[in-house]
Amino acid sequence: MDSKKGLEQVKVFAPASVANVSCGFDVLGFALQSPGDEIIARRVESSSKLEIVTVTGANGMLPTSVEKNTAGVAAQMLLDYLECEFGIELEIHKKMPLGSGLGSSAASSVGAVVAVNRLLGSPLEDKELLQFAAEGERVACGTAHLDNVAPSLLGGVVFIRDQESADVFALECPKPLFATVVHPQIEIKTEDTRKILRRDIPLKKAVTQWGNVGGLVAGLLKGDYGLISRSLHDEIIEPVRSVLIPGFDKVKEAAINADVLGSGISGSGPSVFALSSTRGTAVRAGKRMQGAFDKIGLENECYISKVNEQGPQILEEK
Amino acid sequence: MDSKKGLEQVKVFAPASVANVSCGFDVLGFALQSPGDEIIARRVESSSKLEIVTVTGANGMLPTSVEKNTAGVAAQMLLDYLECEFGIELEIHKKMPLGSGLGSSAASSVGAVVAVNRLLGSPLEDKELLQFAAEGERVACGTAHLDNVAPSLLGGVVFIRDQESADVFALECPKPLFATVVHPQIEIKTEDTRKILRRDIPLKKAVTQWGNVGGLVAGLLKGDYGLISRSLHDEIIEPVRSVLIPGFDKVKEAAINADVLGSGISGSGPSVFALSSTRGTAVRAGKRMQGAFDKIGLENECYISKVNEQGPQILEEK
Repeated sequence: MDSKKGLEQVKVFAPASVANVSCGFDVLGFALQSPGDEIIARRVESSSKLEIVTVTGANGMLPTSVEKNTAGVAAQMLLDYLECEFGIELEIHKKMPLGSGLGSSAASSVGAVVAVNRLLGSPLEDKELLQFAAEGERVACGTAHLDNVAPSLLGGVVFIRDQESADVFALECPKPLFATVVHPQIEIKTEDTRKILRRDIPLKKAVTQWGNVGGLVAGLLKGDYGLISRSLHDEIIEPVRSVLIPGFDKVKEAAINADVLGSGISGSGPSVFALSSTRGTAVRAGKRMQGAFDKIGLENECYISKVNEQGPQILEEK
Repeated sequence: MDSKKGLEQVKVFAPASVANVSCGFDVLGFALQSPGDEIIARRVESSSKLEIVTVTGANGMLPTSVEKNTAGVAAQMLLDYLECEFGIELEIHKKMPLGSGLGSSAASSVGAVVAVNRLLGSPLEDKELLQFAAEGERVACGTAHLDNVAPSLLGGVVFIRDQESADVFALECPKPLFATVVHPQIEIKTEDTRKILRRDIPLKKAVTQWGNVGGLVAGLLKGDYGLISRSLHDEIIEPVRSVLIPGFDKVKEAAINADVLGSGISGSGPSVFALSSTRGTAVRAGKRMQGAFDKIGLENECYISKVNEQGPQILEEK
């Protein structure tokens, strides 16, 4: 590597994430250690444009034109902001299912901006990249939601106090947390899952929900498994969205019976997540949750992962 | 004092409290150092009943029959539970305004159960007294709300995750917090302020609110004044209830202009509170808030107090 010239190529892992986390609709999310996407950003002196040259693992479902691809949009906005003068090629290697409720588009956006920023000599800090990655989400779901982008970029459990002003912060939990995510092989579009939500909700349920949000935030910061567990309920979104996930009640019940701290819909589904205090519980819950999907003949895969405190990882650079 | 016989008389101070705390409708409250009520519980061997023998400071507005008085109901429930065999006389010295939004009835209930428990040799812990004090609230407002009772009893800033199961915990803030409360001389009944609330609220506003609840809980636990300040907003209750408080907007504006962390309705009003990071700011805000009430000719009084981490205090025992 010619240090004067800077880096020529950077390969980044960007993690999948679980948004909402039961009571925290639109305000909470956490990152997984796996799965996730791998993004390569490569400097091209002969051009002055951004190009997506390779997409793997998406079965041809993702557009390769920059302005229609979440990673492309995010990277382009960052390049424009940084007034980059040379060309960049992006490779997007999807290593996770699309439309699964695991923040697939967010992982690609995050991977792209982290890789590009690194390639350009890290002019911005991670938190400053949030707005650019969020623009990728706008392409994917119509709004620049942060509940997948923020945890994927920052790692850990992330709280979004206010989306518009990007007021986000990590909820550092002093105790370990293990996630189980089971993905049934059906696709649900985030846009569709938003449409079925009621515009108005009973005040009484809202109070219950913000009681649980406060309980969960305090439980995480205090490392109080009991409080976390008592707070992991969703009175408002889950009852509406879960009807789109065949077998949801049985899968959740299987998780609860395996002594997890709590279980619910991952993002807008169809994946179902559980949080546990030990890896053993997370594994046991995964088997039982898979069993419940198996019973109704729904193909599925299971991911076991500690909550990823680190966020994206530079895998290679040259 | 004959130690075999136990105590003959206990005098307790029980603090006023600010419930709701902007975004935390029905889930948050904090205790003040002053004002508060003084309750005396006295053992009477010649009787086997509970009697309220003195009520001062209430202008004859409070019933003295045990079953209609909040302190009486709370104390009676506790005595029944503990199977007390001797008689007890209660003196209730109100040292704070009634119907002010400062948790007047809660302070009396809390003072009564703390005094009686102490008189009986402290068989129960403070947290165990919560259910009995809450029964007093049921007499006062129709429901056993905990958002004044819990902070008055436990001290500090208290979060009520779930009222029904009395799942409450303290939010210990590592940084000092000072409260300003200005009470205009009008009376609002909690029952009336509940009636005007809408039964349904927009989901979008509910998300904003639980974003702020989570932000406030995290801000308090982290001691992050900036986050506390950004979170002290109420999108749902304040806009509806504040119309019952003449001059509210100007009073709140006066507080904000004095650089408080945030300001809002204390409980269900009519008192208006502000939270500050220094006593100086709390005092300055108080003067300006009083000025705003003065301007519209509304008599008012101001209380400046550090958030009371201790809760009730035994003032005398013999």
